[in-house]
Amino acid sequence: MVSDGPMRGAIIHGAGDVRFEERPDPTIVEPTDAVVRTVAACVCGSDLWRFRGLAPVPQPKPIGHEYVGVVEEVGSAVTTVKPGDFVVGGFLHSDNTCAVCRKGMHSNCLHGGGYDGCQAERIRIRNADGTLLATPGQPDADLIPSLLALSDVMGTGWHAAVCADVKPGSSVAVVGDGAVGLCGVLAAAQLGATTIIAMSRHADRQQLAKEFGATHVVAERGDEGAARVRELTDGIGADAVLECVGTADARLQAVAVARPGAMIGVVGLPHGDVPTDQLFWQNKGFRGGPAPVRAYLPHLLDLVLSRSIDPGKVFDLTLPLADVAEAYKAMDERRAIKVLLQP
Amino acid sequence: MVSDGPMRGAIIHGAGDVRFEERPDPTIVEPTDAVVRTVAACVCGSDLWRFRGLAPVPQPKPIGHEYVGVVEEVGSAVTTVKPGDFVVGGFLHSDNTCAVCRKGMHSNCLHGGGYDGCQAERIRIRNADGTLLATPGQPDADLIPSLLALSDVMGTGWHAAVCADVKPGSSVAVVGDGAVGLCGVLAAAQLGATTIIAMSRHADRQQLAKEFGATHVVAERGDEGAARVRELTDGIGADAVLECVGTADARLQAVAVARPGAMIGVVGLPHGDVPTDQLFWQNKGFRGGPAPVRAYLPHLLDLVLSRSIDPGKVFDLTLPLADVAEAYKAMDERRAIKVLLQP
Repeated sequence: MVSDGPMRGAIIHGAGDVRFEERPDPTIVEPTDAVVRTVAACVCGSDLWRFRGLAPVPQPKPIGHEYVGVVEEVGSAVTTVKPGDFVVGGFLHSDNTCAVCRKGMHSNCLHGGGYDGCQAERIRIRNADGTLLATPGQPDADLIPSLLALSDVMGTGWHAAVCADVKPGSSVAVVGDGAVGLCGVLAAAQLGATTIIAMSRHADRQQLAKEFGATHVVAERGDEGAARVRELTDGIGADAVLECVGTADARLQAVAVARPGAMIGVVGLPHGDVPTDQLFWQNKGFRGGPAPVRAYLPHLLDLVLSRSIDPGKVFDLTLPLADVAEAYKAMDERRAIKVLLQP
Repeated sequence: MVSDGPMRGAIIHGAGDVRFEERPDPTIVEPTDAVVRTVAACVCGSDLWRFRGLAPVPQPKPIGHEYVGVVEEVGSAVTTVKPGDFVVGGFLHSDNTCAVCRKGMHSNCLHGGGYDGCQAERIRIRNADGTLLATPGQPDADLIPSLLALSDVMGTGWHAAVCADVKPGSSVAVVGDGAVGLCGVLAAAQLGATTIIAMSRHADRQQLAKEFGATHVVAERGDEGAARVRELTDGIGADAVLECVGTADARLQAVAVARPGAMIGVVGLPHGDVPTDQLFWQNKGFRGGPAPVRAYLPHLLDLVLSRSIDPGKVFDLTLPLADVAEAYKAMDERRAIKVLLQP
């Protein structure tokens, strides 16, 4: 089924100004492309940097990079997905064959990149074979939020935990109680951490952190927060720290709650320096970046389909895609952790 | 056998000014102390920061932190070594029982610290049980250099490789061809790396790097050096990079030769910023600091005693301890990679 008219999607025009507008219908350009009709999309914390005026918007631009949907059309070279398949994909496309992808770092794929706005009714997916994973049959409707979470927040929280070297028995501190931080808690629990400390000041997020496996909640920040984490970790700090915000304050907090020799997994977009000399003298490691979602997707998809994890709980508000502007406002004003959009 | 007079050792008085002088004979102060008569000591690249005037010398101070020797006396609480034992210890003392040591990060021991100058005839070793390891019997004389190398450079090179997550099959680039960088090559080979690129411009060091397991030598630096490393690593850079210098140039070189998703193990004393934003976007990790030699010592001691590794080859000049000033000059002027001192 190929659409015969324009489609609609979100375009950011500037700070505080996201509009739902008609856009050209995406088409197959390269033989490796697919066109996907979105079943659900959402707003990312990283989208808010532009919405809040903290990152520039030089010109109006389609926005959004998270989606699940149904394949409508594929290029002649696509072999692993076909029209009608329900698919999930990460927030970047990747060929899954280059030297970097073969090392598992698909987010730095030599031939990968971003999308042309996924808060839309239809999306052109480049490198479809290296990006999309089809579910076996159409998933139950109640699984859609968790499948959608795999496209970014769950994959990113997982990356934080992997970068922080979370192992069975680890003590873990999670800085940031947004959707990514909460998914980081869930990832740490899956990876066998036995002490999981969610640093959160919001009752609703504390509650979800506990549902996801947090053993402790620390509401304090700064030196007091670090002291509280040390109390819970033999007086020395956590083995693994997940930094899921990106601000200078959050990064310093992450360093402060890490024990000597700890790893800090960083996935918040960097908006502040890291004191590398202090890291050195305390043997604290630092690793992270844009998550290679495609590398984690097969495992995470299994966990969702077997109902072992339910990252979709981070969506606490659902709106029609047409109300995307309201979705941005709700997240900006912290009225919602994360908003699911339905075309 | 307890000494009955003053002993002699090196004291740094200022840049370029190391003197061999009489010092008070060390004694047992705490019941956990030992006194060790040094059999060999040496000069560290990190000692040169002060000798070169790049780190301050506010007042004359005993210097040196590498040694092997024979226990002369132990405090009443010491149970694992006894007078007459030949012992090796790392460049910091540690209790091996605190919460940080139990995590394997002895260099950040809650009750550890440095020595009062090991380029000396005798040394007071605090926390003897948590610091020293005795060899079974007296070692063959030809093993002394390799045993001495364990006290810092081999343990530090090993730490770089561990922090860089070197695994069987890894491609590894080593920045720095001093004794630590060369030991990093040896460590990478032991840990199963199959491509080991030594970045070195000095023929003698290139030769030793090859003996230690380097599969390639890259003499170029900067962009050209990075391009050469990429040629040897599928065009993307090394899986693991060992940064064994510490200067800003060396750290930037390490970042440049690392592939996306690589780990950079850092053990050179930090004298330059690390571009953490660049690390983030390329998913390059960064980990290291003062090496927890005590954690690695049992394994490395086995490797030396079984003659599986011979890190003592880094010593290319042997001098009497009394000539310690000349040892500093030889290393400062790069006439020697590393100087072994014999009391």
